Amino acid sequence: MSAAAGRRAAWLLRPAWSRGYGRDTLLRDGVAAVIVTLMLIPQSLAYAALAGLPLEAGLYASIAPLLLYALFGSSGVLAVGPVAVVSLMTAAAIGEHAAAGVPAWTAALTLAFLSGGMLFLMGLLRLGFVANFLSRPVIAGFITASALLIAASQLAVVLGVPAKGPNFFVTIAALLARLREVHGLTAAVGLGAIAFLWWVRRGLQPLLLRLGVGARAADLAAKAGPVAGVVLTGLLTWAFGLDQQGLKVVGTVPQGLPPLTAPAWDLSLWQRLAVPALLIGVVGFVESVSVGQTLAARRRERIDPDRELLGLGAGNVAAAFTGGFPVTGGFARSVVNFDAGAQTPAAGIFTAGGILLAALLLTPALYHVPQATLAATIIVAVLSLVDLDSLRRTWAYSKGDFLCVLATLAVTLGWGVESGLITGVLLSLALYLLRSSRPHIAEVGLVPGTEHFRNVLRHRVRVSPRVLSLRVDESLYFANARALEDRINDAVAARPQLRHVVLQCSAVNAIDASALESLEAIDHRLADAGVRLHLSEVKGPVMDRLQPTAFLRRLRGQVFLTHYQAIETLAPEVLQDDRANPAATAAPAARA
Amino acid sequence: MSAAAGRRAAWLLRPAWSRGYGRDTLLRDGVAAVIVTLMLIPQSLAYAALAGLPLEAGLYASIAPLLLYALFGSSGVLAVGPVAVVSLMTAAAIGEHAAAGVPAWTAALTLAFLSGGMLFLMGLLRLGFVANFLSRPVIAGFITASALLIAASQLAVVLGVPAKGPNFFVTIAALLARLREVHGLTAAVGLGAIAFLWWVRRGLQPLLLRLGVGARAADLAAKAGPVAGVVLTGLLTWAFGLDQQGLKVVGTVPQGLPPLTAPAWDLSLWQRLAVPALLIGVVGFVESVSVGQTLAARRRERIDPDRELLGLGAGNVAAAFTGGFPVTGGFARSVVNFDAGAQTPAAGIFTAGGILLAALLLTPALYHVPQATLAATIIVAVLSLVDLDSLRRTWAYSKGDFLCVLATLAVTLGWGVESGLITGVLLSLALYLLRSSRPHIAEVGLVPGTEHFRNVLRHRVRVSPRVLSLRVDESLYFANARALEDRINDAVAARPQLRHVVLQCSAVNAIDASALESLEAIDHRLADAGVRLHLSEVKGPVMDRLQPTAFLRRLRGQVFLTHYQAIETLAPEVLQDDRANPAATAAPAARA
Repeated sequence: MSAAAGRRAAWLLRPAWSRGYGRDTLLRDGVAAVIVTLMLIPQSLAYAALAGLPLEAGLYASIAPLLLYALFGSSGVLAVGPVAVVSLMTAAAIGEHAAAGVPAWTAALTLAFLSGGMLFLMGLLRLGFVANFLSRPVIAGFITASALLIAASQLAVVLGVPAKGPNFFVTIAALLARLREVHGLTAAVGLGAIAFLWWVRRGLQPLLLRLGVGARAADLAAKAGPVAGVVLTGLLTWAFGLDQQGLKVVGTVPQGLPPLTAPAWDLSLWQRLAVPALLIGVVGFVESVSVGQTLAARRRERIDPDRELLGLGAGNVAAAFTGGFPVTGGFARSVVNFDAGAQTPAAGIFTAGGILLAALLLTPALYHVPQATLAATIIVAVLSLVDLDSLRRTWAYSKGDFLCVLATLAVTLGWGVESGLITGVLLSLALYLLRSSRPHIAEVGLVPGTEHFRNVLRHRVRVSPRVLSLRVDESLYFANARALEDRINDAVAARPQLRHVVLQCSAVNAIDASALESLEAIDHRLADAGVRLHLSEVKGPVMDRLQPTAFLRRLRGQVFLTHYQAIETLAPEVLQDDRANPAATAAPAARA
Repeated sequence: MSAAAGRRAAWLLRPAWSRGYGRDTLLRDGVAAVIVTLMLIPQSLAYAALAGLPLEAGLYASIAPLLLYALFGSSGVLAVGPVAVVSLMTAAAIGEHAAAGVPAWTAALTLAFLSGGMLFLMGLLRLGFVANFLSRPVIAGFITASALLIAASQLAVVLGVPAKGPNFFVTIAALLARLREVHGLTAAVGLGAIAFLWWVRRGLQPLLLRLGVGARAADLAAKAGPVAGVVLTGLLTWAFGLDQQGLKVVGTVPQGLPPLTAPAWDLSLWQRLAVPALLIGVVGFVESVSVGQTLAARRRERIDPDRELLGLGAGNVAAAFTGGFPVTGGFARSVVNFDAGAQTPAAGIFTAGGILLAALLLTPALYHVPQATLAATIIVAVLSLVDLDSLRRTWAYSKGDFLCVLATLAVTLGWGVESGLITGVLLSLALYLLRSSRPHIAEVGLVPGTEHFRNVLRHRVRVSPRVLSLRVDESLYFANARALEDRINDAVAARPQLRHVVLQCSAVNAIDASALESLEAIDHRLADAGVRLHLSEVKGPVMDRLQPTAFLRRLRGQVFLTHYQAIETLAPEVLQDDRANPAATAAPAARA
């Protein structure tokens, strides 16, 4: 093995946190693990139900993936497991294939395998940057829409009404149409659980603080609400035999180790699942990295996105072979882990141990937990993801970005998670390209008393009628090269006194082959009209490119280091004092 | 009708050239028309054959479209009609549907109708700018590949060997495999015609000039080569009865007015033809506008791309109803038109009259023209489109642009014109996005004796250890926002003395909502580390956006008009003389 390959293998296999692990770290990690385990049990069951899978799959998905993530991942506090949005996407992807005769769980295992494989491969190729192409408006619209979709589907469970439509609006309409079929007892338990969980979230912490409980303990107590809800409604159901009166309960969950499973080795199924698997992987990765970076920054640490890809990839592959389904680093859970003091991925290993004990011993105790309670847990969790304030701020800041939020939101609600996400990404890229294809080109003049040039329309500046100074506020590339040609043509036609055009290239970060041809054409046409083309403030990387070209050899004008030097050479009268030199006119003050 | 609608109607319907049309203009237009007519007859027949249609379709496509273009178009010299690349694309599109039982000509009429309708609609919506998204490398690769495809298909005709493969390489292989089946007489005529046309193109003009013929007349004589070739080989065939010896000739071409035809009114066919129609329209538009702009610039005129869309759209719709096929403004033909002195689109009307006369009277005389001669005409015409020098220059200038040329070329040759074009466009957009997602971020310092700041790695500049000046060479948007976060995080970690980070925003042309959140995060994190974030040289349009945001209210640092003012305020020692102030260090000289 070469030295480079050896280093690569070491990078892959050495958990970054393993050095210097001591007793104190062990204790903190252990405490965090107990708390997260308690929180994870009801969540795992609920998200398995959301994904349309047997509840035990949720427990299995919270064991092996955590171990593998701990081995490959980089974040000390990220808690991996089933999360709401990814479970929803899993349900959508496997729902499409249920008709084709593929069992739901097999499809979910295959999805986890493909998704994990893709993430791991992306990690090896260090492709973490692709997540950057999911813009925040797209993520905001997608998460809000997913939360509404999830809430609608769980509301049907809470009310005991079977309502399931092809999209959000149909689901809501079906729910409203069947309101009189609501099962009273189920609705009472479900809505009661929602009210309780909401109070725990909003009212319990201030109350505990007033009662003198420490801030951290109060916070953790509030976060433990779902566990309390599950225990309380489970006990009530058991004590009063509510399951005999039509209240649906979790029922028998198999007891034992996670089973050894395998994805379907079916190439045509792989082809059909490839796009959903990629989207699930990328969305999970983005959620995971956002959470991880936010938490790491609080401790002045950094996470490595490429290692996260490896960690999540390995975790999902592990889920595929141990009866799970697609997982990622969840927000709520990671925050709890962080607050409880987790220091290293070892906390995740201990959590996995906790869930394993639950799968081995605790499942009979879950028999009487009402399904409506699990649905209530999900509803309260996802509604906190609806971020209307972010929508409002985006509207105020940029109508184009808001359009991306709105389109992602609407398409996700109306046509499903995959269409919504793809629409959002393509729309945000198209808007970016469209904007960059219509560059802002400003005529600039000298700010008196400085060496600085600004837009003649916005600042009181000095210009010469013989020199046109243009600042192009965009890299020059094929989509906008023609816009510059047009602007210069118009200017030359309008100004008979013109002798020099100076392009201030401070905002030109690149010039591609198409734009280079445009510049040649501009120089040529200007020369025919007796005008010279000059460049100023060309950046190093751009100049390196231009140096050997015929364009620079043939250019009639000069290339100036600064725009000030250009004006010093071409129109020195502009630099002189106003009164001494009335010829150099001050340009009109701010217009637009 | 409102005043605005009235103006709009006037813009649509008033030929821009109709004012001040006099006797002199009439004469020039008339002479140009005669010359172009002569050139257009063999070309029209040849391109109809290339498109896989009856030869008379070529004549019909050169009558009504010219009239309609004259009414709506803006260029005085563009000669509209069948052209090589568009005919090739037509052949590819209708070839796919021949199997589905749609007659070739009907498919071609439908294609012209759809393509024309799309162009006209784009013109009404003033969408001319979409053509900018075809970069020059993509066009160069596509045109070169198309020329090779056309040459290969016509070589089979010249050699009298039926060789037609699914792609360029298979066609060439088939041709080589069947070399011994070459029909001697056909090959002799065809290769002879190629040699003659090549000589006319390269050798005749210098010869005439040496013989004292005027430059313009010599040039036109050289351009009339194809006509001479057709007449000569036609006479030879007639005189020696070569068509009796196996030489394939044009044969009977119906005599008469263009027929009244209609596209197929079949929605499923429209759906299948939509993508080829759009590509044919856009490629035709780009070719047309390039030629038109080049020629207009020579006369200090301008063409209006949106009017061109209307003109070409109307021309193609006209072709659909008069037995033609997709047309556009051709390069060779327009240059001849220009050289012959055409002044206005009326020259096109006269040319249409000339072709009409040919369709009415001349077709019997075409009976004996060998098909090999027409193929030779095409081969010589398209080989001048192969632009290897442009490939070489693109390679030298930019490997990314060269990759676009190469991919477009290879995919067009291997998988056909549509795949090639789509691959090229998507690849060039992807490369642009990828590049802009990895922005160049330079640390800058003061160039001594000026108020100008440049990269510390490239210039001898002055900096302060307490202030980090970063210039981001890209607009900040979702795909690159994280790169800035990473760069600043790294810098802060590496420099314990740091107190201020100033972002010089001279190259930041826009900040989207994602990047705004990143800036907020950066400010927040820097504040935690005891470092202030400042901005300088923020552009007007960007500042307008930032003004009402919470980011600017909460920003710990200031916004400076110039970067010089920022350094004056934050690190005045940098502005002082070196010897008086050894603390301000000069940064290392150029490294990279």
